[in-house]
Amino acid sequence: MRAALAEFVDQREWRQFHTPKNLAMALAGEAGELVTLFQWLTPEEAERIMEDPQTATQVRHEIADVLSYLIRLADVLDIDLAAVLQEKIRLNEQRYPVHLARGTADKYDRLPTDGDC
Amino acid sequence: MRAALAEFVDQREWRQFHTPKNLAMALAGEAGELVTLFQWLTPEEAERIMEDPQTATQVRHEIADVLSYLIRLADVLDIDLAAVLQEKIRLNEQRYPVHLARGTADKYDRLPTDGDC
Amino acid sequence: MRAALAEFVDQREWRQFHTPKNLAMALAGEAGELVTLFQWLTPEEAERIMEDPQTATQVRHEIADVLSYLIRLADVLDIDLAAVLQEKIRLNEQRYPVHLARGTADKYDRLPTDGDC
Amino acid sequence: MRAALAEFVDQREWRQFHTPKNLAMALAGEAGELVTLFQWLTPEEAERIMEDPQTATQVRHEIADVLSYLIRLADVLDIDLAAVLQEKIRLNEQRYPVHLARGTADKYDRLPTDGDC
Repeated sequence: MRAALAEFVDQREWRQFHTPKNLAMALAGEAGELVTLFQWLTPEEAERIMEDPQTATQVRHEIADVLSYLIRLADVLDIDLAAVLQEKIRLNEQRYPVHLARGTADKYDRLPTDGDC
Repeated sequence: MRAALAEFVDQREWRQFHTPKNLAMALAGEAGELVTLFQWLTPEEAERIMEDPQTATQVRHEIADVLSYLIRLADVLDIDLAAVLQEKIRLNEQRYPVHLARGTADKYDRLPTDGDC
Repeated sequence: MRAALAEFVDQREWRQFHTPKNLAMALAGEAGELVTLFQWLTPEEAERIMEDPQTATQVRHEIADVLSYLIRLADVLDIDLAAVLQEKIRLNEQRYPVHLARGTADKYDRLPTDGDC
Repeated sequence: MRAALAEFVDQREWRQFHTPKNLAMALAGEAGELVTLFQWLTPEEAERIMEDPQTATQVRHEIADVLSYLIRLADVLDIDLAAVLQEKIRLNEQRYPVHLARGTADKYDRLPTDGDC
């Protein structure tokens, strides 16, 4: 996927625009557009968002746009996406131990600690 | 990666929080946090952002967070990330023909058309 | 408010960072941080978000941050916030006529037109 | 401005959609759309963004949209925008003393302290 995107960009001589700063902005912009598809929906309507074909296509395209810019940004910063994801999962396993984090959406700095129990 | 994240979520009984609407918000939130790392940098400083170890770690973690929520969102919506990316690249090949889009950052609806030439 | 913020910025010689591009990023970043305060809440919990003093303070600060950067951005672009808001309300009164838009969250380009009725 | 927006919303019976959670999302979505107008511009091009009439109109509208949702969110949460802004400026005066923060974009937790000097 990284290679396909890089080729697409190079063919169009878009590398001049794909700076880290610009790609971070583009990613935030696409995330914002994705959010607009969900903003007025009730939780129940949001669960069924893929049932309307026109909206489903929009969701698919916005998700693809976010993914594209994420891959591009990682590429220009020389970041291995699979490696950072694994690294972050391992960190979160420490921050959110199963017996303390189960069933709560609290951030790790608000979780009880073992000492509290 | 999808399976590892789903297992992490299930162990903590977090599936109740991981609704499509909430995941879209979480993705936008993480994209916002990523952007804050770049906002005051000049283009040149942003190119070298990975040279400072503390900032580099932050960038890696924010990128991992965006990727995590993107994979989770795609999972709960039953979207195949590789497939939508290919679909979007193909669409963009039509919207941005090489001979018209070369070297310009204009959006496709502002590009000249072949008829204009 | 605009003058107070401008003075704060000038005293610290921050005008060099407050370019339109950087301020647009900062605004998106703060909006992302605001969203993270709501992302895991049910609609009912979100209605009561100001009842927890610690979270209420966070909400107040994030809202102030968004407002600060919005005022700063308008200032450097020489945009009159009160005027653009009035302009936009007037446009939306045309786009969303009461008798067509009542009770629906559809975007204006999906609303029925008078001709459809 | 708050009253004009509230009236606009009430006439269309949109209060049901304007929950705190949904308005936070809408704000993030509009901030994302604003960012897309700046993402491929060089710093110099971004300084001149209001010179192109079509783009200037888009900037004005997106800024008005962000402001609208910010006012709406503050209204439904019963937050006084002028008061929180003053409160935040006072906090930032403590976090960013002029003699330590002058000319640097560092976050307050990375600034030198008086003790360091």
